[in-house]
Amino acid sequence: MVEHSGLDIMCLNTYCHSSSSSSSSSEHDKKIFTKIKLNLSAACDYPRKNSEILSGQYGTNVLLIGGALMLAIAHHGPSVTEEHLLSFITCLMILQLMWMMWYIWIRDRRSDHRTEKDVHATTCWIRGGLTLLALLSLIMDAFRVGYYVGFNSCVSPVLGVYPVVHATHTVAQVHFLWFHIKDVIKKFETFERFGVMHAVFTNLLLWCSGVMSEAEHFLNNHKRRLYALGYGNLTIVHPEPNCNCSTSTCSMFSNSLYYLYPFNIEYHIFVSAMLYVMWKNIGRVLDLTANRKRSATETHGLILGPILGLVALASTIGVLAVYVTHVEESLQTRQSAVSMFYCYGIVMLAFMCSAGASGLLIYRADRVPSDTSENPSRQLDTELLFGSSVGSWLMSWCSVVAVLGSAATPPYRWTNLVYSLFIILEKCVQNLFIIESLYRHPEDRDDPDLPASPEIFSVTSSLAPPYNGILNRAYEAPDRDCVTMDNEQVESGQVYRSQRKPSKVPLTEGNKLVEGPSIKRRVLKNIAIFLLMCNISLWILPAFGCRPQYDNGLEQEVFGFSIWTTVLNFAVPMNLFYRMHSVASLFEVFRRA
Amino acid sequence: MVEHSGLDIMCLNTYCHSSSSSSSSSEHDKKIFTKIKLNLSAACDYPRKNSEILSGQYGTNVLLIGGALMLAIAHHGPSVTEEHLLSFITCLMILQLMWMMWYIWIRDRRSDHRTEKDVHATTCWIRGGLTLLALLSLIMDAFRVGYYVGFNSCVSPVLGVYPVVHATHTVAQVHFLWFHIKDVIKKFETFERFGVMHAVFTNLLLWCSGVMSEAEHFLNNHKRRLYALGYGNLTIVHPEPNCNCSTSTCSMFSNSLYYLYPFNIEYHIFVSAMLYVMWKNIGRVLDLTANRKRSATETHGLILGPILGLVALASTIGVLAVYVTHVEESLQTRQSAVSMFYCYGIVMLAFMCSAGASGLLIYRADRVPSDTSENPSRQLDTELLFGSSVGSWLMSWCSVVAVLGSAATPPYRWTNLVYSLFIILEKCVQNLFIIESLYRHPEDRDDPDLPASPEIFSVTSSLAPPYNGILNRAYEAPDRDCVTMDNEQVESGQVYRSQRKPSKVPLTEGNKLVEGPSIKRRVLKNIAIFLLMCNISLWILPAFGCRPQYDNGLEQEVFGFSIWTTVLNFAVPMNLFYRMHSVASLFEVFRRA
Repeated sequence: MVEHSGLDIMCLNTYCHSSSSSSSSSEHDKKIFTKIKLNLSAACDYPRKNSEILSGQYGTNVLLIGGALMLAIAHHGPSVTEEHLLSFITCLMILQLMWMMWYIWIRDRRSDHRTEKDVHATTCWIRGGLTLLALLSLIMDAFRVGYYVGFNSCVSPVLGVYPVVHATHTVAQVHFLWFHIKDVIKKFETFERFGVMHAVFTNLLLWCSGVMSEAEHFLNNHKRRLYALGYGNLTIVHPEPNCNCSTSTCSMFSNSLYYLYPFNIEYHIFVSAMLYVMWKNIGRVLDLTANRKRSATETHGLILGPILGLVALASTIGVLAVYVTHVEESLQTRQSAVSMFYCYGIVMLAFMCSAGASGLLIYRADRVPSDTSENPSRQLDTELLFGSSVGSWLMSWCSVVAVLGSAATPPYRWTNLVYSLFIILEKCVQNLFIIESLYRHPEDRDDPDLPASPEIFSVTSSLAPPYNGILNRAYEAPDRDCVTMDNEQVESGQVYRSQRKPSKVPLTEGNKLVEGPSIKRRVLKNIAIFLLMCNISLWILPAFGCRPQYDNGLEQEVFGFSIWTTVLNFAVPMNLFYRMHSVASLFEVFRRA
Repeated sequence: MVEHSGLDIMCLNTYCHSSSSSSSSSEHDKKIFTKIKLNLSAACDYPRKNSEILSGQYGTNVLLIGGALMLAIAHHGPSVTEEHLLSFITCLMILQLMWMMWYIWIRDRRSDHRTEKDVHATTCWIRGGLTLLALLSLIMDAFRVGYYVGFNSCVSPVLGVYPVVHATHTVAQVHFLWFHIKDVIKKFETFERFGVMHAVFTNLLLWCSGVMSEAEHFLNNHKRRLYALGYGNLTIVHPEPNCNCSTSTCSMFSNSLYYLYPFNIEYHIFVSAMLYVMWKNIGRVLDLTANRKRSATETHGLILGPILGLVALASTIGVLAVYVTHVEESLQTRQSAVSMFYCYGIVMLAFMCSAGASGLLIYRADRVPSDTSENPSRQLDTELLFGSSVGSWLMSWCSVVAVLGSAATPPYRWTNLVYSLFIILEKCVQNLFIIESLYRHPEDRDDPDLPASPEIFSVTSSLAPPYNGILNRAYEAPDRDCVTMDNEQVESGQVYRSQRKPSKVPLTEGNKLVEGPSIKRRVLKNIAIFLLMCNISLWILPAFGCRPQYDNGLEQEVFGFSIWTTVLNFAVPMNLFYRMHSVASLFEVFRRA
């Protein structure tokens, strides 16, 4: 009988659905078969649901322990100090290192066994960007070690161990990102789920810790400035150790650190998002037809978008320089700096809104079916875009309330209102544009979801399953260099082309479609690249100290110092993440258009 | 040709998948057919994705405006007062009333047209419970009106208008819940999406506002208590109006209000969760085979669970009474009250943990396939359980950090630690138990997903599609009384039984299975009912003023008053919601077991 048919092969949830058509056997046989199938799927599904929830709960609690420690540190009491938090994070990083080593070792041992890869999980340019951010994090670690060496007589050794472990962790993690992040894990699922979840939340905790240090540094600067302007009796907490530096470079190290923080922060949040996608992919049965790479991006007809984007970028750097120097001076100069910022912001956001709106109009005119295939990476992108908008929206609505409720009338009162409303509108339009772009079927040759198109079907179904769509480059080729990996898209395109040779139809069909991007696509590409550069600009400003929400005084009057600071500590990091994430998503839009 | 085949029928996303098997026509015809299908699905899908995001953004921003107003009120400044917030909420409620009237009017006009219903969307007992909560809310509104009448010479008329509108809103919304919440909307999708989203976020805002009032009231009481004990210089904000009450009942009204707040708060959050499920259902194509009701629950063999649960409930009420009276007195009595609470909590949680763990062990021993059919209601249940645990976990980890870091040594120091760890463990186990229960296939006669079972298939497929699984009780019978609706499950069971008469096979098959619940099921039912009553107990305690986290002083020492109060203001409402939501989920578990 069929009893042993599939017990030792991998989980096939699709089993039940696919086999209901076999109607030749008797009623009794059918019943037995159904029972076997149910038992089979029980044996498979059961631990999965459980381990998903359990690992999620584990990760959440790890983060919350860190959160509790951070809250205690924020009180600046004597009982819980930063060393406690750093020791905790160091332990987590060491655990993650051990898990990554185990994972790579296990993969190495079964090098004959090919691992499925989810090609949507990440792109080469994201990994390249992350490598750059990781390099800057390494420099930060070096500065930290230097700082520790200077003060080693009076600070805890944890401050020396932490950067060393963090540097090792960074190097190992970048290696992991390049070679394993796309893996669809099918062995030791439960254990790996915990490992990946641990990695996700370790990175999230590192992000939180970075955000906290950065916010505290910024707040101290702000208080110092208010104090210099004669505002007051705000206590400034000095985290300086109480002995002299034994080298001459300590202050250089500690000052430079804060210019590197923004990069370190973005690095950790991006890695945790990617690891989360890896976690979602564990045990997933890939849809073979949808799992296919696009070919290389064309840059034909890209003129207006990049030029306008560069103008925006250049003016942003100018505004940043003027703002940061003027805001330290007298009340008069400070107000004019804030006014200038708002005017600049309104112009910028008006351009961005119109760009996004034109993109949406083009989509309205050009109907293409939406792509409903399963794709955890895209799903997460959408949720993160939406979720991280919330911080900025809250900040803007607070500003609106403050402008309408405040009794003070600084010169920038109404520009602040217009700016805040534009921020809300711009995020709405941009979210719509990005999400719609990501959910559209790519119109070009490699249209992955034309299920009824007979040519493509005939070709893909002639391939052996493991080669169809899923890239099966397992660990067997770990030594290929980065240039090869940078050309991954092209390469995989070639793979398909050569695989398609048995049938000539799709090649010619494809070529006809590829000929050149239409006008619509060109406009879309320009819009995407313009929005991308604008988002970089709007990331640079708050990341490097241009935060008029602290300096304009309106919100502080209506909400009070502590509530408004809390709102900003919550909203500014979310806004920074939003901008960076939009940049990544818009690059994807640019490539797809 | 096929060009006009399906353009004016409803969206069929499944089209593309289902028709790829028709391989008789020529290649050219196939291509045209594919194109038509793509255009069709484009015309259908497009506005849907957009309206989803747009309405989500609209709702979020409505909530954030309310949030900004609340933050400004929390500062107690002169510019933004509670009247502003109440006017805003009143406008939102009036808008929602208008939408509900429009919706019902439109449904009335097309009374010939049957509306599909999602039977999973809610159950009759949840609606019954909500009606009870709504009644208590109405009493609250009456108290508010009375309070306004007393002070009408010196308070804003908004305080009079608000309760009247709120009462109308409550009545209309309960009517909507009974007759329309299960509707699967397929007409005017975009507009209705906005309407439902508006309703969701209006209720969420009402929840937030209730939580804020309640937290402020509690905090003022706490400060008053600290002041009476000689602790200090904390300013208490008196929201009392500055004129005398013209009737004799004002203080009675304002004091009673706070006993009704917990019910009002739960009412709004539950309604918003149900409306969210309705929003998710808009335009959904129901899986006809999975959309079927279970028959009535048996209560055979329910002894130990209810008895233990009643013991828990009774002891809880005792503990509450002792705690609330003792905590107001001297430091000594206060410490003993807190100690008593922790000891009681540890015993209670230990029992709950073991009950949950035994439930999980029974599931381990009794393998049943997990139910993977689409069910937005269940999905939301899972996410809400997990999400609302976070608040309580954070609070507990803060307590753990405080116990380990604090220099003070009150008698309840280590019991606090054990209690906090038990809280974390208990939530983990209970979440696992509930989620696993909800995702298991119901084992009984109406097993909805036995796709290969030929008898059931033959029966259901002999029915006309609109009668198959989906209840088509549209607005045509709005006047049947509540008793009928309470018997809905039985009724629908009878419907199936009578519909099944053409074939006798499933009836006998079913009866054999129904005979009596097995021992495992009996144990599970007892566990579910015990946990349910324990969760009610753990809801009652914080809802009616037993919050040792405010009174034990340990956390306040380590985190400082303002940080710890912020944590509690965030975590306590989440914890209250968690308990109530667990009660609802555990009742569902009880019915399914």
